[in-house]
Amino acid sequence: MTDFIKDGLALVEDDLAGIEIALEQNLTPYLEVVRKTARHIMFSGGKRLRPLLMVLSARICGYKGDYDKTFSVIFEYLHTASLLHDDLVDEATVRRGKPVANSIYGNSIAVLVGDFLLARVLSIASRTGRMRIIKAIAEITENMSQGEIHQLINKGKLDLSEEEYMEVIRRKTAVLIEGACRTGAIIAGASEKKEKALAGYGLNIGLAFQMADDLLDYISDTKVLGKEIGADLKEGKLTLPVIHALQNTEPQDRALMEKIITNDNFSNQDFKKLKDLLKTYKGLDYTRSRAKFHIKAAIDSIAPIGNSQSKDLLLMLAEYVLTRKM
Amino acid sequence: MTDFIKDGLALVEDDLAGIEIALEQNLTPYLEVVRKTARHIMFSGGKRLRPLLMVLSARICGYKGDYDKTFSVIFEYLHTASLLHDDLVDEATVRRGKPVANSIYGNSIAVLVGDFLLARVLSIASRTGRMRIIKAIAEITENMSQGEIHQLINKGKLDLSEEEYMEVIRRKTAVLIEGACRTGAIIAGASEKKEKALAGYGLNIGLAFQMADDLLDYISDTKVLGKEIGADLKEGKLTLPVIHALQNTEPQDRALMEKIITNDNFSNQDFKKLKDLLKTYKGLDYTRSRAKFHIKAAIDSIAPIGNSQSKDLLLMLAEYVLTRKM
Repeated sequence: MTDFIKDGLALVEDDLAGIEIALEQNLTPYLEVVRKTARHIMFSGGKRLRPLLMVLSARICGYKGDYDKTFSVIFEYLHTASLLHDDLVDEATVRRGKPVANSIYGNSIAVLVGDFLLARVLSIASRTGRMRIIKAIAEITENMSQGEIHQLINKGKLDLSEEEYMEVIRRKTAVLIEGACRTGAIIAGASEKKEKALAGYGLNIGLAFQMADDLLDYISDTKVLGKEIGADLKEGKLTLPVIHALQNTEPQDRALMEKIITNDNFSNQDFKKLKDLLKTYKGLDYTRSRAKFHIKAAIDSIAPIGNSQSKDLLLMLAEYVLTRKM
Repeated sequence: MTDFIKDGLALVEDDLAGIEIALEQNLTPYLEVVRKTARHIMFSGGKRLRPLLMVLSARICGYKGDYDKTFSVIFEYLHTASLLHDDLVDEATVRRGKPVANSIYGNSIAVLVGDFLLARVLSIASRTGRMRIIKAIAEITENMSQGEIHQLINKGKLDLSEEEYMEVIRRKTAVLIEGACRTGAIIAGASEKKEKALAGYGLNIGLAFQMADDLLDYISDTKVLGKEIGADLKEGKLTLPVIHALQNTEPQDRALMEKIITNDNFSNQDFKKLKDLLKTYKGLDYTRSRAKFHIKAAIDSIAPIGNSQSKDLLLMLAEYVLTRKM
């Protein structure tokens, strides 16, 4: 982590602490098992990127009210609900360095606690009194579920295009971050111009964030990442590093790449070989450059907004997306 | 089916046809698999009780607009989403005479299409422009998910009280039907008094409906019911017929009852024996009398509302709840 980012994080320490409290206070289930399951996944080192972006987006638009932390939990609950359902879908085993919730509490509880969190999202969103926020949340959840389904039916598709990959990550990841930034602006009663600027920032940050995530699945290690390395490939999930490399591979390497990709039980040696091929055919470099492109687009999107500490923090978070190790 | 009910159904034929069209038109997924999965469960002989109740509740309050059918799908989509997630939770195999969706399309798709339907609910609800409806929907979904979880953790609990059973069925079933009736009143701009009367009707119909459902699991047969008979017991789900019989059983029969209840693989002969014991210890009679009590409470709740054809239909539907065979 650069010093720049460390200093920035110190500036949002109070915001992050406020978000933690709000996440706990707004859960309000009547059953203890619901709290336990939701806590298991939610209080295990999440970065709180989404609620933090909503809080900063509201502040950059001059919001001075008391409800920003409360409303910000919407975006962490949505994210958590999606993780609970996805871990079941993906048959993942580890998340944030801990066994996934469904392996401890069972698939049924994981599904239903996810549903409960979606319901809480709706309750809290209705407290904003803004129908536009309700509509935004509806759009986000429609996109997320369809993005996940799209990803699911794309599994193992060796000729997946970059375009289709972009469509999936926009829906499953980027619209939520876009929505967090947009909602911050709406809560602050910002002008349409500012709302669009912040939504554009969020969308691009979201795309870059997912690309960085997909890169980490090849270049991080399990201990740092808190989940299995190579998990995407094991699930047959083709992400940009692989898509790009496959498009540029020489015929003599294609067969080997495809063999490793379509083998659910590839060895560590196979995985190492594949990573070499991703390097050779610029899959990693290209993904990094596309992520950088969207980081720049995010920064450009908020350029018209005047300077402030909140803006500096948004710029810093944009940098963080590319430098993070987990 | 009595002639009274047959004549009544003829009167709502147009409404039911309108509801079918709205259910199809408001789905609008961009992926074909979503439509296929949702259709699989939704267009397989559902009774459309919930949307019909919303439409009739709006009409009884003088609603003359064009959007009642559109808004009514909210309650069928919520119901369908819950079925998709519950079939997975319950490990059911048959629903409405067809294999459950998750056995054909996989658990992942079933979970995610359920999420998509919840998102559609939110989108359509936001088009009402009424924050009170959004709040009602939020409350319903919170109750439904917690009711299902409560039922799940109650599984196999031999000392389950009638009170706890009532709490579960209120949350998992009755609040949705209550919400359908209440929403009809809100859409029509009804007085608070009428809204309360219709909500009271819906809540009590919902309780009676679930009790009747729990009875059918013991007295119907698989072919008519479209799902396995005795499924509740196989899943360890103790419903009112069993709860009441257990509370009143003589010591010499208790051990046998408990043995059958706690055995996941009970034989047909065991099941027959258990049904005899439910008769002996008035489990079936008592459940029927409690259902009748709530039917009466439902009818009483709308007594202050003036007579009309819509009111006659609500009274008829109240009777139908107890006489239905599936």
